[in-house]
Amino acid sequence: MGMDVAPEVLGSSAAVLDAARRASVDYADRAAVNTDRSGFVPQSLPDGVVFAESVEDVVQAVKLAAAHKVPLVPRGAGTGLAAASSASAGEVVLDLSRMNRILSIDPVEQIAVVEPGVLNAHLNAAVAEHGLFYAPDPASTAICSIGGNIATNAGGMRCAKYGVTRESVLGLRVVLADGRELRTGRDTIKGVTGYDLNALMIGSEGTLGVVVEATLRLRPLPIATATVAAFFPDVAAAAAAASAVIAARLQPSVLELVDGPTLAAIDAALGTNYRSRGGAFLLAQTDGFGAHLEMDVLVNAIEPFTAELQRAADTAEAEALLTARREAIPSLEKMGRVSIGDIGVPRGRLAEAVTGLADISRRTGVRIFTIAHAADGNLHPIIVVDPQESVTEGPAKAALGEMFRLAQSLGGTLTGEHGVGLLKRDWLRDELGDVSLEVQHAIRRALDPQGILNPGKAI
Amino acid sequence: MGMDVAPEVLGSSAAVLDAARRASVDYADRAAVNTDRSGFVPQSLPDGVVFAESVEDVVQAVKLAAAHKVPLVPRGAGTGLAAASSASAGEVVLDLSRMNRILSIDPVEQIAVVEPGVLNAHLNAAVAEHGLFYAPDPASTAICSIGGNIATNAGGMRCAKYGVTRESVLGLRVVLADGRELRTGRDTIKGVTGYDLNALMIGSEGTLGVVVEATLRLRPLPIATATVAAFFPDVAAAAAAASAVIAARLQPSVLELVDGPTLAAIDAALGTNYRSRGGAFLLAQTDGFGAHLEMDVLVNAIEPFTAELQRAADTAEAEALLTARREAIPSLEKMGRVSIGDIGVPRGRLAEAVTGLADISRRTGVRIFTIAHAADGNLHPIIVVDPQESVTEGPAKAALGEMFRLAQSLGGTLTGEHGVGLLKRDWLRDELGDVSLEVQHAIRRALDPQGILNPGKAI
Repeated sequence: MGMDVAPEVLGSSAAVLDAARRASVDYADRAAVNTDRSGFVPQSLPDGVVFAESVEDVVQAVKLAAAHKVPLVPRGAGTGLAAASSASAGEVVLDLSRMNRILSIDPVEQIAVVEPGVLNAHLNAAVAEHGLFYAPDPASTAICSIGGNIATNAGGMRCAKYGVTRESVLGLRVVLADGRELRTGRDTIKGVTGYDLNALMIGSEGTLGVVVEATLRLRPLPIATATVAAFFPDVAAAAAAASAVIAARLQPSVLELVDGPTLAAIDAALGTNYRSRGGAFLLAQTDGFGAHLEMDVLVNAIEPFTAELQRAADTAEAEALLTARREAIPSLEKMGRVSIGDIGVPRGRLAEAVTGLADISRRTGVRIFTIAHAADGNLHPIIVVDPQESVTEGPAKAALGEMFRLAQSLGGTLTGEHGVGLLKRDWLRDELGDVSLEVQHAIRRALDPQGILNPGKAI
Repeated sequence: MGMDVAPEVLGSSAAVLDAARRASVDYADRAAVNTDRSGFVPQSLPDGVVFAESVEDVVQAVKLAAAHKVPLVPRGAGTGLAAASSASAGEVVLDLSRMNRILSIDPVEQIAVVEPGVLNAHLNAAVAEHGLFYAPDPASTAICSIGGNIATNAGGMRCAKYGVTRESVLGLRVVLADGRELRTGRDTIKGVTGYDLNALMIGSEGTLGVVVEATLRLRPLPIATATVAAFFPDVAAAAAAASAVIAARLQPSVLELVDGPTLAAIDAALGTNYRSRGGAFLLAQTDGFGAHLEMDVLVNAIEPFTAELQRAADTAEAEALLTARREAIPSLEKMGRVSIGDIGVPRGRLAEAVTGLADISRRTGVRIFTIAHAADGNLHPIIVVDPQESVTEGPAKAALGEMFRLAQSLGGTLTGEHGVGLLKRDWLRDELGDVSLEVQHAIRRALDPQGILNPGKAI
């Protein structure tokens, strides 16, 4: 290990960092891994980082951590939005970003086997050559890792039709808290031998095991897609149009809502002029053999609510529209410090949720921008504060709490796809109840009795 | 309780059956619940049956069983195929078939809330009035319960496109082994608070908790379907055609393979003449806005292999073809005692699996009939023996063991959708390995330390 920190300061961590392969205690390395994109910044830095390059590196690090009772924080690309991979003094970060190889692509079985550090967009570029795609597509696709997607059960735009990460992961290779290797799932599409440990690991934020390899289900690229951008006088009209799409029994592959203030932020960042065309925006895509027919019906359903409709003439025009949506969060990040909410509500209550968010903004004085995966009822209300202000204390935290209560009052959830991490633990009991939390802690104790893996996160 | 059995014979069970509401120790009741449709018949009868009519009945029975350390065997409609609900002396059956109310249907959110005893076909009939369907459709749809579907993570014909039971269950209300009530999942499409206890419960065969209520995801009935029956010279040609469908990157909602001997059995039972038209049969259905276009491409893909093609002109003709497939197992049951295999293989290896099954039949002298969910690589090789012979001992058991080794040698699984129960435990360790089984037992101990719920099953 490096020499920036005296071993006696580190306590038990020193023994781990001393013995582990590819460990560093350099200040720059530690500072680079103590937080994510949640806006939460721990008061201290972790004691060190292990840069795993192989399963053996992971096994060694976990065994050392277990032997010395040192908390280990698994980390992918650091793009999490719930502080699930943030780390502080007394903890060692297990960085998996160097395990970034695509191990195999089987175009016949439509399966890929990857290491956890592979970036989502890199995988999609590689499988596109075979006419396939990996469905989960977080807006951060260009910079987020498959391992992180698995840790949070990440979603994205396409999960309206194709499901979230859980629906695209067939099997996992996992290092448990005592260093044993576990295989979950299988290589076949279906299978029910034993309990669904695969689903249990997905979304567990690294608290039950460290994912070191994943077998992923790919899907054929659609034979056709149809894309429409619709502009509305206000966000309530856009939400009503989204509900009309669901009521018309359609299954768009993408149905994204963006409110007016966010459109203005996108325009400022990209030099576009979306905001001038309406006070809210709905981006819809259909795919498959009936893509254009289904889009005709979709357009009929939303037309009564729209101010303007733009049907993409080709892939380039469609891609430009998708890019605008993907750039929403980066555009807002240019305006200040952001905290990205992630509430889910029953789909028919989207308009109530949008109205409720405006109320919260008024009451708390906090600026809230809203984008939503409308077909799933999954909203991302984004709080933006001045760069020197905190998003995890004061009015921003109060607004976050009110958002959760709003979701709860509408029969919804605290987090649709970003996870709990450290950021949302305060509201977890209200949603899950005592029995569920007790059961979850019992499972965690059964798998990690010493609490070595990412303690304090997720549950 | 009734008086067929003296309390002193029952030991601890007497205390449970004495105190539980709606308990019976009548011979007829006990004889009616000791086995399922697996062909496995326990040597003795359970001590009694509790016929639960409410959540309170279940809680009371579980608490009594826990207090007296009596094993409780949850039971739905008794249509299981792996002896997961078979019960013997020393055990009490918790029969949930009277909890058969559809509690609500929300056509806007496309959600239904049901009790576990609701039959799959009853639910589908009720939601069809709203233009919706519940996707999982085991061949036993007319007689199997939603609770049993959840216990086994059941599949069916439509899961080629719509996924298995896990993909259609949003939330559960579960009574744990100590009588506490747990809620898993949620009412929204997406949600990632805490571990995925919902998926953990699904497929756990009643060993982790008793499902007393389920919130189910419904889907819009497709706007169009296209159905084709194709006949082939032999089963190898049919398997090659199925592989060609996958290779053509199509997504049929149904792709069912039936071999020649099974066609003959169907003909004998239904008075049809399928066997005269070919030595194997493939039933394909596409749905959605592009159903007919996609079917054109599918027909092109399989035509080189076919002897005859029948494109259904209307819904009635399509339904007749689906019925023939659904009647395959009942038709074989008329020929003798059956044991229904359930192996899964990678989709591209379907033809090898079919050939391997023919080899097993030759080597063991056991008659094997084969039907398959071809799009998932999920085969049901069906062993038929004379009524007086056993399907769980002797040559039939040897053939079952060889089937599993065949699946394993092709990179597949012991069970695609029927579950493990008692029937497949002998081969479980070979598939899952020691670490996975240890983890599963650790989870079971964490949730049910006394081993009250369905001991000896599933894992």
